[in-house]
Amino acid sequence: MISSLRLGPGAEFDRLRAIFARLGSEGQGLGDDTALVRLGGTTLAASVDLSLEGVHFHTAWLSFAEIGWRATAAALSDLAAEGAKPVGILVSLGVPGGRGKGEEGRGDPGVEIMGGVAAAAKHVGAKVLGGDLVRAERYLVDVCVLGTAVRPVRRSGARPGDGVWVTGALGGAALALDGFRSGAPPMGALRRRFARPEPRIAAGRWLARHGARAMIDISDGLAADAGQLAAASGLALEIELERIPCWAGVAPRAAAASGEEYELLVALPRGFGDRSARAFTRASGLALTAIGRCAAGRGVRLTAAGRTVPAPGGFDHFAAR
Amino acid sequence: MISSLRLGPGAEFDRLRAIFARLGSEGQGLGDDTALVRLGGTTLAASVDLSLEGVHFHTAWLSFAEIGWRATAAALSDLAAEGAKPVGILVSLGVPGGRGKGEEGRGDPGVEIMGGVAAAAKHVGAKVLGGDLVRAERYLVDVCVLGTAVRPVRRSGARPGDGVWVTGALGGAALALDGFRSGAPPMGALRRRFARPEPRIAAGRWLARHGARAMIDISDGLAADAGQLAAASGLALEIELERIPCWAGVAPRAAAASGEEYELLVALPRGFGDRSARAFTRASGLALTAIGRCAAGRGVRLTAAGRTVPAPGGFDHFAAR
Repeated sequence: MISSLRLGPGAEFDRLRAIFARLGSEGQGLGDDTALVRLGGTTLAASVDLSLEGVHFHTAWLSFAEIGWRATAAALSDLAAEGAKPVGILVSLGVPGGRGKGEEGRGDPGVEIMGGVAAAAKHVGAKVLGGDLVRAERYLVDVCVLGTAVRPVRRSGARPGDGVWVTGALGGAALALDGFRSGAPPMGALRRRFARPEPRIAAGRWLARHGARAMIDISDGLAADAGQLAAASGLALEIELERIPCWAGVAPRAAAASGEEYELLVALPRGFGDRSARAFTRASGLALTAIGRCAAGRGVRLTAAGRTVPAPGGFDHFAAR
Repeated sequence: MISSLRLGPGAEFDRLRAIFARLGSEGQGLGDDTALVRLGGTTLAASVDLSLEGVHFHTAWLSFAEIGWRATAAALSDLAAEGAKPVGILVSLGVPGGRGKGEEGRGDPGVEIMGGVAAAAKHVGAKVLGGDLVRAERYLVDVCVLGTAVRPVRRSGARPGDGVWVTGALGGAALALDGFRSGAPPMGALRRRFARPEPRIAAGRWLARHGARAMIDISDGLAADAGQLAAASGLALEIELERIPCWAGVAPRAAAASGEEYELLVALPRGFGDRSARAFTRASGLALTAIGRCAAGRGVRLTAAGRTVPAPGGFDHFAAR
């Protein structure tokens, strides 16, 4: 039985250490967002992800269906990073009393949110298994995802010499967020990128089958999550800024800091090369880009034109407020 | 795969019907608080229970450790009513920023809450598998419990002629609540009853092994939960008010309305009699009392001295605010 607790950088991380110290033998280990439990002849993978109005989403920015989809995709992204196959989800929903009903063009908020939750679950072949509904002061969506993992991939398995790769292109989430904040809401593909992120389930399973040594989803930003993977694996990650695949119009530094990207950062053995990456792209429709390598040492070393540059700040809900 | 959604009486129930209608084929069925999924050679039982400050608990009434214990026990109680064996829990925690720290005699609230969560889990042999920690405006504890069920007991299996039984004694939770509300906080056993309720895991597993046809935990009050069991089983429950086992100082009507009791209401075949009940008590240390029977028809019929009396109101967080 392997325990897990979501670990953001900074203040949240320290807080969780204290909590786990208190748990003692009840909660073992630190690290991955996804817990693994042997059950019958299977390994159950389970993770939970809490989204709060005002912290993780704003009702002025997103439709209720998008809020439900996004919260569910965030939780499913943890299973993707484990190489797990989703089975079902449970969802706790907090809905304010008089709010939302009768707003123009909007149905019952609770129903709309659950519609988005169900659509995200269906998108990856998972069922909505159950839930709890409570009247709350502000909207909240807490999603527990359950899946099975044949070859679970933890954060801790990278070895010096492994290549460091990333799926998709980064920075769209930050660009969309800038748009919302500046009163110019994103449209089209950029809005979808933010409002309906796709958990990389098929990609994660493919990578697990093809030798992934360590994997993490990019929820706190590439630089911050690379730090988590480096710490869990007990080594250093060297990342070349100019190799980071960027969303159109986003600079590499901003792409490396952008949170809630829900792409996968993965350590693959040296033998995994461009030919394997093309096979990945044929199977998943996604780019897979080599951005650096694992080395002895600790922490993340970002380079630009061969020179070390300071790491950008991560994305930390807990410290940000 | 059997789906579930927690169903309170009244407004909450109606709301959930609308939500499930929207889910369509993603969420199948209505009824039990616990979902069942076949996984490997095992049946996984999963349930989620959201506790919010101001709705389900007050920090002025309970210690943070009690808040954590109570939220966890409430979720575990769903597994008890399924006859399931807990394996692990995941918990999402919302903790306000500046509050709680440094209050006299109190440690870090998040750590204290997780201590209570872990103690309740350990009490029934479950592990804390993982969690999520978020800064929130008010405290919240959302607990997802996972277990295995060899002989799952649903709400829907009762048959006319079955006896209706209840574990323990009812009404303590309402009495304690009265005390808190009137400024005379309960002490000793009554406080423990409210602040550290014991999920009836061993009792539920014993009853599942000994022929339980249908089972539900008493979280919304005996009368209301009897109505849920009657509806799910498609029959009527006849309950004799004077047979209800009451907490010292509580009248049967108040005992039948008292919510958050976390005892088990169970339908057992006619052949299950006082001798079997004594065996249950020897095994569990708990009373098991026959309070009525299942009959053709619908709804709950409460009687006093052989005459039908109106049902007391249930306990409905959602309607209460």
